[in-house]
Amino acid sequence: MDTWMRFRSNDGDIVFGRVEGGYLHEYKSLDQPVPTGAVLSTRVLTPLAPCAPGKVVALWNNYHALAAKLDKPVPAHPLFLLKPAGSVIGAGEPIRRPAGYAGKIVYEGELGIVIGRRCRNASVEEAADAIFGYTLINDVTAADLLNENPHFPQWCRAKGFDTFCCIGPSIVSGFEWQQAHLVTMLDDVERQNYPLDDMVFSPAEQVSLISQDLTFEPGDVIACGTSVGVGSIKEGATVSITIKGIGTLSNTLIAAGATAAAHAERAAAV
Amino acid sequence: MDTWMRFRSNDGDIVFGRVEGGYLHEYKSLDQPVPTGAVLSTRVLTPLAPCAPGKVVALWNNYHALAAKLDKPVPAHPLFLLKPAGSVIGAGEPIRRPAGYAGKIVYEGELGIVIGRRCRNASVEEAADAIFGYTLINDVTAADLLNENPHFPQWCRAKGFDTFCCIGPSIVSGFEWQQAHLVTMLDDVERQNYPLDDMVFSPAEQVSLISQDLTFEPGDVIACGTSVGVGSIKEGATVSITIKGIGTLSNTLIAAGATAAAHAERAAAV
Repeated sequence: MDTWMRFRSNDGDIVFGRVEGGYLHEYKSLDQPVPTGAVLSTRVLTPLAPCAPGKVVALWNNYHALAAKLDKPVPAHPLFLLKPAGSVIGAGEPIRRPAGYAGKIVYEGELGIVIGRRCRNASVEEAADAIFGYTLINDVTAADLLNENPHFPQWCRAKGFDTFCCIGPSIVSGFEWQQAHLVTMLDDVERQNYPLDDMVFSPAEQVSLISQDLTFEPGDVIACGTSVGVGSIKEGATVSITIKGIGTLSNTLIAAGATAAAHAERAAAV
Repeated sequence: MDTWMRFRSNDGDIVFGRVEGGYLHEYKSLDQPVPTGAVLSTRVLTPLAPCAPGKVVALWNNYHALAAKLDKPVPAHPLFLLKPAGSVIGAGEPIRRPAGYAGKIVYEGELGIVIGRRCRNASVEEAADAIFGYTLINDVTAADLLNENPHFPQWCRAKGFDTFCCIGPSIVSGFEWQQAHLVTMLDDVERQNYPLDDMVFSPAEQVSLISQDLTFEPGDVIACGTSVGVGSIKEGATVSITIKGIGTLSNTLIAAGATAAAHAERAAAV
């Protein structure tokens, strides 16, 4: 298992690499994982989302427990929508309430798959090889917009707002997802705790099947869908998603008008 | 009015600029429209889609005539899905039937808006200024997949396949869309002929309202939705979409296994 992160350096450059003992061993990129030789202390770096996906494919109804709760049959092919690249933020960055939207905002703790190489019509074996590693995702939704129009469910709109796709803190390659649980805390209350092996389509099956539909590029992300326990977030509340072996992804919801500086001050005061 | 195109040169470089009298006057980029001084004959260049959108926002139910035909009320906010960047092809490139999909493939002739600058929470006036120009789009759909699953309409999947977003041949800046008609020919039969001023949301309104939902980046595209006359395409058939003042976008559907070389041979033989 290796842990991979992406940072902004003091001079504004973006650096990516393997993190070990407080140091970043820089690599050329996620699709060209060749060491540059540079070693940087992570203390002088600002963490970013661990990859910059061109697209995020987000699954619906991919856990047996949630399908049973919703009383829906499990699908025969992954059901997905797309979240735009602009919705991505990293660990610690604030989720912003959209200006002009006063409705319910919902968290969903999810396993994320990060694609390492271009991938189209891939077999399950080829798909497994195309997976660079795993990360954590909070797939945020403006829930009241989903069915606002009775003729067209607005999945892309409700889930596509800026800051509505929290990814991080790292990507772990060689991670054995089969034995892992995902835990979501809303402030200090546990709201989700589900085993990843309850998935309908495994990560390699997802990549293989969806690669029949579209071409994956390096850095693209699949949000594997969530299970039971989703709920709404109030301003000021922090959602923390943990998978042992990957880490914890924490993000706080802030009001539409709030500034990131005020958010940082509040966070520092806690 | 200026006409803008993007090409691949013989040495593999991508060049963008203003086209006039068979020459490309190269510009730095769409968001930095500064002339480089280079002037190239378009005869030695291979045309590409005129921009490389990070995302394509595709509208549903944006024409009064189609809403009336579908017996649906016109929406209060643009209804949209996202088509991935990988679905984009240019004029003359083949639309490929997805491997493993034997169902109906449908064309939709549409006006395309090309965004020129980053744009978020824009007023209608700011949105109008953020529009670089207009292009033509064939928004292709694997229609039988849309409602294959009764619990989740698969808009992104059905419209997201590689080659399912034809854009081109050029972008025209300063184009007066209000007086224009869009005509779609299926081989030599006219199938769509509708006035653009029947739109529910005008281009500037679309950019303004959708910029409340997500951030537009330079080169992003909005497919403005289609009107009456959509229909299915058979292998070997060519869809040609024309708006006077912008040009004609033609693309031929080829079988899943067919090669582009065979397509080019067939096209040359006609």
